[in-house]
Amino acid sequence: MSSTRLVEVRRNILKQNDQVARELRDQFAAAEVTVISLVSSPGAGKTRLLEETLLRLRAQFAVAALVGDLATDNDARRLARSGAFVRQIVTGTVCHLEAAMVRDALVGWDWQSLDFLFIENVGNLVCPATFDLGESQRIVLFSVTEGEDKPLKYPTIFNTSDLAIITKIDLAEVVEFNRASAREAVRRVRPDMPLLEISAKTGQGMEEWQLYLEREHGRRATRKT
Amino acid sequence: MSSTRLVEVRRNILKQNDQVARELRDQFAAAEVTVISLVSSPGAGKTRLLEETLLRLRAQFAVAALVGDLATDNDARRLARSGAFVRQIVTGTVCHLEAAMVRDALVGWDWQSLDFLFIENVGNLVCPATFDLGESQRIVLFSVTEGEDKPLKYPTIFNTSDLAIITKIDLAEVVEFNRASAREAVRRVRPDMPLLEISAKTGQGMEEWQLYLEREHGRRATRKT
Repeated sequence: MSSTRLVEVRRNILKQNDQVARELRDQFAAAEVTVISLVSSPGAGKTRLLEETLLRLRAQFAVAALVGDLATDNDARRLARSGAFVRQIVTGTVCHLEAAMVRDALVGWDWQSLDFLFIENVGNLVCPATFDLGESQRIVLFSVTEGEDKPLKYPTIFNTSDLAIITKIDLAEVVEFNRASAREAVRRVRPDMPLLEISAKTGQGMEEWQLYLEREHGRRATRKT
Repeated sequence: MSSTRLVEVRRNILKQNDQVARELRDQFAAAEVTVISLVSSPGAGKTRLLEETLLRLRAQFAVAALVGDLATDNDARRLARSGAFVRQIVTGTVCHLEAAMVRDALVGWDWQSLDFLFIENVGNLVCPATFDLGESQRIVLFSVTEGEDKPLKYPTIFNTSDLAIITKIDLAEVVEFNRASAREAVRRVRPDMPLLEISAKTGQGMEEWQLYLEREHGRRATRKT
């Protein structure tokens, strides 16, 4: 296999994905559904944040979630406790979600009546970066326990996201997390990137996050519930 | 692009990689170099563990490290402080190391005189699983802050590793880490997998880890230094 041929193959896959993503984005916009995708490394706290978010938004909005994992439906079962509709996407050995997986997961239920659809990607700071899912916003999470330099080491995922969230901020002191150097790392990759600090455990930053989501939804749609 | 064609392309890439890996493994065995690769999600503590390991082994063994990252040579600079020879492999957008990258990184220096060569993979619990690097042992790390269910969610990387290390064990209590359920998760994926609990920060478990490495080297080689 020549490397020219390989690049061509990769390009074709991405092109197909972008086409499906574009169709999804049009459908989401027409139905006025705000679609928020979450990306991070494994264990950064996507599911925990999503759990708290669904609970908070449910009082005022119609919300649902799609969750991607290589194996298990642990996350879907966990999130379903919030009372929101949740569907698991099992990817097998695939390291990221693709637009076609999202499209297939939308079959057979009334997602058009949603205000918010959340998509939790496979835990991976590399591969999800290059796959558009048709989302309104992509949010990248990294936890204080992972270290301050993650934006510099995984620049593409930060460059393709709209907001960065530093999670598990309640552990900042115990792991000697340096806020200033983390902010500097984000700024070096994306100078104007908005940044939130959140602990889903203590609730710190959750109100600001909720306001952020409501503002995003307000820019796109009229409330349905 | 038909999916049949895609599967064929993937198979060819893996076949090429396996061939290079086999050549590397033969060369490492002939030179009696014990090659240890480390895989984990971003921020699980590969570099920190490696830093402490190089410091401890250096007194008695000839050691060096190759470190993979998408961007930056932060890790190589950090590890070089241990006094060991360290070379960075920058992968760009590639989510894993491949055997050919290791082969290329071995050009131009006397790796044959080593006792141990460590290879730190890109932070990713998915993609490195299917790429043999010719290593003697693959070690998978996951930190207490990532949650107990990682083996169940990323079974392939656990199935292809020889030892699992639970890192940042000093934080177990503060993050309410459930040791029993983590051990059970590992066992469900790989019933006979050896497991160490380590804190590179406090030193807990480091002696057992060092003994493990020395035993592995002893099975393969005579000491060179």
